[in-house]
Amino acid sequence: MASAFETATAATRRPDSPGSRSVYDGAVADGWDIGGVANGGYVLALAARAMADTAGRPPLSVTAHYLAPGRPGPCVVEVEPVRIGRRMATVAARLTQGDTEVIRVLGTFGAPPAPDGEPIATVAPPADLPDYEHTPTMERFSPTMAPSGFPRQVEMRIRPGDEGFAVERPTGRAELAGWFALAGQAPGDAIDAIGLLLAADAFFPPVFNAGVTPGWVPTLELTVHIRAVPAPGPVAARFHSDVIAGGLLNEDGELWDSTGTLVAQSRQLALMPR
Amino acid sequence: MASAFETATAATRRPDSPGSRSVYDGAVADGWDIGGVANGGYVLALAARAMADTAGRPPLSVTAHYLAPGRPGPCVVEVEPVRIGRRMATVAARLTQGDTEVIRVLGTFGAPPAPDGEPIATVAPPADLPDYEHTPTMERFSPTMAPSGFPRQVEMRIRPGDEGFAVERPTGRAELAGWFALAGQAPGDAIDAIGLLLAADAFFPPVFNAGVTPGWVPTLELTVHIRAVPAPGPVAARFHSDVIAGGLLNEDGELWDSTGTLVAQSRQLALMPR
Repeated sequence: MASAFETATAATRRPDSPGSRSVYDGAVADGWDIGGVANGGYVLALAARAMADTAGRPPLSVTAHYLAPGRPGPCVVEVEPVRIGRRMATVAARLTQGDTEVIRVLGTFGAPPAPDGEPIATVAPPADLPDYEHTPTMERFSPTMAPSGFPRQVEMRIRPGDEGFAVERPTGRAELAGWFALAGQAPGDAIDAIGLLLAADAFFPPVFNAGVTPGWVPTLELTVHIRAVPAPGPVAARFHSDVIAGGLLNEDGELWDSTGTLVAQSRQLALMPR
Repeated sequence: MASAFETATAATRRPDSPGSRSVYDGAVADGWDIGGVANGGYVLALAARAMADTAGRPPLSVTAHYLAPGRPGPCVVEVEPVRIGRRMATVAARLTQGDTEVIRVLGTFGAPPAPDGEPIATVAPPADLPDYEHTPTMERFSPTMAPSGFPRQVEMRIRPGDEGFAVERPTGRAELAGWFALAGQAPGDAIDAIGLLLAADAFFPPVFNAGVTPGWVPTLELTVHIRAVPAPGPVAARFHSDVIAGGLLNEDGELWDSTGTLVAQSRQLALMPR
């Protein structure tokens, strides 16, 4: 049975797609929005699922530029195969609603190569992040999200202390760690590469913990690298903004599966809360 | 007078560009290659200069996917305006040589907003990087680059110790810091946003210092965020690979101007040396 996330990101390829382009009909589903604006990771996942279908491979490195808010309702994803290679395929896509282009995406698709010896990693899951079962859910703290829409689609658990921004005690450090799962995800379910795109933009902006007034943080650009196929279970995440200057901020994320393997790295460029 | 870099990345817009696309004729210049393959940052700069012309603004966030080696000789850059806004413009481009697409690029262009208060940055130039004048040049150490082509176009100075990989004493840490300038850059010259794209891919891969055998490290994807307009002078840089696994590695870079302001962040996904 398809998960709610799979259903909400499904699109159907038109058999009469013109020329070399593939055209998919889909919809920005109800209930994946925050105040009427669809979550950015969700919209990326919707486009990427159609791109993966054309590429015949899962996402490896995907970049989206955000052009207009995604609104619940029909959408079209046009996918252009740029280069279909033996191991990897590069494809471009635009997701539109009526005359409005919502996102433009460019990505290289292909399964991450199998491990070849011991990985070298200088980043590791935060040592002070409790087990999933012992990490508190964030939901009830949020000052800016209603308990409806997107927050209901995901299970977001926050490292104790990092909820400070939501209770007027920001930590002073633009960092947020925790766990991510899909709502209703069974213990044996794994989050796939497209789910990782969702996870990469699912958390509250860590800049809230730097003491700025929480508000809308518009993403200009988001890139996600898929580094390994996740083992079953939720993923641990750490998001941090290292440079907040001139009205712009980066937001970097690292995601690990339940065995501690780094499965994705993400980075976005966003505007300061307004 | 135009610098050698400006000349090598210039392209001429065809007055008869069809429809909404702008078409530019340019060339992958002689002397910007390593063993016949043009440097990736140089090819990106060539495409980005044409994109900036169409956008009417400098690059802010640019992503390139590398499809085929750039070879000295003519090229065409086709630029598609995706969304031209008041403050920012998003444009896509393809750089081709004959029937071969070399890179596909997607970018948002616009001047970084003016500073609004004190920046918050948790990254700073390496404390152990000497002044530019006191930092040794790398050139003579290289085991993999001939003293011709690309290395002649840039002034690359390396933090003492980081040259270890080149003298069979890798540091064991996938990091490389140093200074970057354009060859012949006068002290009063500033590196502009397009020059920062070049700088973001100009250094030796830091993975060489992790003890892997140096070789070609093919970039799959490179994203550069321009965060401030550099002050005159060279830029300090730190490049590091934090996750080396499954035949893939990230390479993150931070670039600071001569006053210590962070001017760019870069990240690429690349294949292990082969």
